[in-house]
Amino acid sequence: MAAQKPNMKTLDLDGIFNPERIAMIGASANPRKWGFIILLNILKANYRGRVYPINPREASILGYPCYRSLRDLPEKVDMVLITTPAKVVPDLIDECGAQRIPYVIVITSDFSEAGPEGAALERDVVARAEKYGIRLVGPNSMGVFGSKTNLHATMPPVMPIHGNVSMFSQSGNVGVQMLAWGEQEGLGFNKFVSSGNEGDLNCIDYLRYFAEDRDTGVILGYLEGIEPGANLVAEAKKISRKKPILVFKGGRTEAGGKAAASHSAAMAGENEIFRAAFRQSGMVEVKTSQALMDCAKAFSHYPLPRGNRVGIITRGGGWGVITADFCEENGLVVPPLPEKIIKKFNQILPKYWSHGNPVDLVATISHDPYPECLEILSRWEGIDAIIALGAGRRGFTYRYSKDVTGPQEVMDAIRMASTFIEQRNQIPDEMLKGVRQLIVKSKKPIIVVAIGSEKSHKLNLADYQVVSYPTPERAVRVLWQMYKYSRFLNSPQDERKF
Amino acid sequence: MAAQKPNMKTLDLDGIFNPERIAMIGASANPRKWGFIILLNILKANYRGRVYPINPREASILGYPCYRSLRDLPEKVDMVLITTPAKVVPDLIDECGAQRIPYVIVITSDFSEAGPEGAALERDVVARAEKYGIRLVGPNSMGVFGSKTNLHATMPPVMPIHGNVSMFSQSGNVGVQMLAWGEQEGLGFNKFVSSGNEGDLNCIDYLRYFAEDRDTGVILGYLEGIEPGANLVAEAKKISRKKPILVFKGGRTEAGGKAAASHSAAMAGENEIFRAAFRQSGMVEVKTSQALMDCAKAFSHYPLPRGNRVGIITRGGGWGVITADFCEENGLVVPPLPEKIIKKFNQILPKYWSHGNPVDLVATISHDPYPECLEILSRWEGIDAIIALGAGRRGFTYRYSKDVTGPQEVMDAIRMASTFIEQRNQIPDEMLKGVRQLIVKSKKPIIVVAIGSEKSHKLNLADYQVVSYPTPERAVRVLWQMYKYSRFLNSPQDERKF
Repeated sequence: MAAQKPNMKTLDLDGIFNPERIAMIGASANPRKWGFIILLNILKANYRGRVYPINPREASILGYPCYRSLRDLPEKVDMVLITTPAKVVPDLIDECGAQRIPYVIVITSDFSEAGPEGAALERDVVARAEKYGIRLVGPNSMGVFGSKTNLHATMPPVMPIHGNVSMFSQSGNVGVQMLAWGEQEGLGFNKFVSSGNEGDLNCIDYLRYFAEDRDTGVILGYLEGIEPGANLVAEAKKISRKKPILVFKGGRTEAGGKAAASHSAAMAGENEIFRAAFRQSGMVEVKTSQALMDCAKAFSHYPLPRGNRVGIITRGGGWGVITADFCEENGLVVPPLPEKIIKKFNQILPKYWSHGNPVDLVATISHDPYPECLEILSRWEGIDAIIALGAGRRGFTYRYSKDVTGPQEVMDAIRMASTFIEQRNQIPDEMLKGVRQLIVKSKKPIIVVAIGSEKSHKLNLADYQVVSYPTPERAVRVLWQMYKYSRFLNSPQDERKF
Repeated sequence: MAAQKPNMKTLDLDGIFNPERIAMIGASANPRKWGFIILLNILKANYRGRVYPINPREASILGYPCYRSLRDLPEKVDMVLITTPAKVVPDLIDECGAQRIPYVIVITSDFSEAGPEGAALERDVVARAEKYGIRLVGPNSMGVFGSKTNLHATMPPVMPIHGNVSMFSQSGNVGVQMLAWGEQEGLGFNKFVSSGNEGDLNCIDYLRYFAEDRDTGVILGYLEGIEPGANLVAEAKKISRKKPILVFKGGRTEAGGKAAASHSAAMAGENEIFRAAFRQSGMVEVKTSQALMDCAKAFSHYPLPRGNRVGIITRGGGWGVITADFCEENGLVVPPLPEKIIKKFNQILPKYWSHGNPVDLVATISHDPYPECLEILSRWEGIDAIIALGAGRRGFTYRYSKDVTGPQEVMDAIRMASTFIEQRNQIPDEMLKGVRQLIVKSKKPIIVVAIGSEKSHKLNLADYQVVSYPTPERAVRVLWQMYKYSRFLNSPQDERKF
């Protein structure tokens, strides 16, 4: 195991994620082979380094000259990708060793996930790699992504947004789909690895590497199992102090554990042991795939709340009620407004405002008091975070039917009203800029909620660095996780527990 | 209270939701007044009936001749909308009474939600209405929607899809936004009412009406409070036997209850009492706004599962694990596959398939065994429902960068691969048709999961009557609610409990 090696104090995996020269053994001219598809994925994403296809039976693939073997390359490469059938992989490792290749990614499957024979083959591959000091990703990996050199060496052509989130995944599918989903949601990734069977490098190694990696701000992990010897708690405890680790554990139940055992070679451990490990080491365990996505956005863009007191501001009473309920049911507190803050709102709002927290504005068509109210709320020292309902872009649009007939006046009025509605639907530029400024000024997370379309949420994040969700409940769940992590960081070192 | 009136055995509110002739008192030529905005909303949505604006100071509004009073109308109307200031409403009720108007919707606010004075005014309004036998929506209502005559008498211009879901909401904002959100998600509504202060008609009345309404298949309610005298359990118990009632209760906590009290006149009751009432009467209580939306889609389109045993089929191991975990953590069971079913799959699938439930297919590019496998699974009598991961449209698209440069061969390959990917991304027409057929044939709900965009989910529902969600966890939560309701229906009548 990597963690037991003496030379692994700082684990340099740059050659896997940011290689400048790579070779692909098993490169293919057959569009149905992974050796073609992954090569194309690398090329089409404008990889910034040089890539050398290796295939003794082809002169060129995709217009790139093809080489017979590693020995024939014009320069030394940082990393080798292997997509050949399993049985030739051990010899290829020898070849990589002879050429002093430091990193090899084995995409090839049919190893330990496929039964005892495959397991024996995998042991052989790993033993040879160890002999040469080669660090191995996989086997049975769906590939890697690195934003620095634009390396998209994954099976499906995903085009992640670039950001500061790095992820390891013990399920290739869950991993690559998080990248694709993240693109829709506005979540940017820095690095990604599908860890496959973890014959050599395992998720703790990736954790340690991401921890030292300056470009990584938040670590995401989809985990199914860890080898019994791995010291997850000790490693994660150190890392959690530096940056948040968001972890989603598959195989929590008997049915899930069985399913995990059938598709990956990792051993799913006892759920209670994992849960305790996460708690003790300050890892942020999420319980749903949506929460993994949602938390990643907020942790990578927002300051942590210092406590669990939430201010709620809303344009409609019911949504404020729903938000307050969900806060109080999930470990957050919605404190009452003190008299001095009520007085401040009284000066701005019509007399029928809620006079409490949630701050329920009274709708006025002429003037929008929202930005001013949000600022007052953000300055109140009695809260640690804000949920701002109806700030920013709408997730849906109010609109008029297109096939209306009627008197000219109706048509004119519809045109006028449509223009008005369009203005209201348009990017509330100043509002979102204001939200971001208040976050910076108050050092409090202000999470926006707007019912509907993920498109608006992606733009809020991309254009204004404002995190928003389509329901208040998702905002509450994220805030609760941020609060728990903040509490972990602020508790005395020897008592730290999530 | 309505429920105590002897003549209310069957409650006919057709004139509120399907009126053929309506009048609007307070109709206005001023685009900033609700009397203009709501009138425009009615006209622009191609209301199928006739609408008469009433305003003594205008000759015409929006090109429609304006009338001085109800007395001057050329024909009797079914329903009157009032948007005037509060203080004139009592006299207007007298006027409606004199003209034998059966239904009045009072949009006007400043009644009991605004303090003691408003409460006195509201009592006056209600007493006069009762004297004439007028049934009253509101006051302080955000309006109604009825699909039969295309009546869009709501404050914001929402354009709901037509369907078989009818909703009452004690928060106008929550209600209208559910309609707008539903349009995005593909959820169709039949009727909607923002019940406002419930001076006369209350949510139990709407429940009873929706129960008898042939066009309503599923009842949705956002509830904050009910008058102490209302017999929710007794009414709902009868109705739950006929059609599902999905209820979302605001004001479950102290903070939420306070917020509810500040914006609506309804009294938020003790949470435990409500919870017990929901359980005893078979109402389906959801805990999040998302669950209300999700459940509405499934309950209105799918048969109920007979039990809690779930079959899972997936194209990627990790998502199967996640789904199985969430099932078992939330009251559902993922039974192991019996030998005879395993044998059937063995005949179709490559040897490395999961040999269990979840059924994890092995990806093949050439042939997609998914439809065949789904059919086998649906025929297995050991399960009551299916979660089908990766069936149907993708929520996101795999794609290639547009600004790639490289040798001609790369460009050609990208074109070719893009075409291939587009084909895979395209509507899997046969697949979705097949899913619907299997639902009909097996009488089991088959819920599809596809990560990402709500657009694909809307189309799955609109084009194929297939319910899909962007995460497996949402599918599981819905199935659990369907199972609980099914159990309620199937238990002996005197023991029925949710």
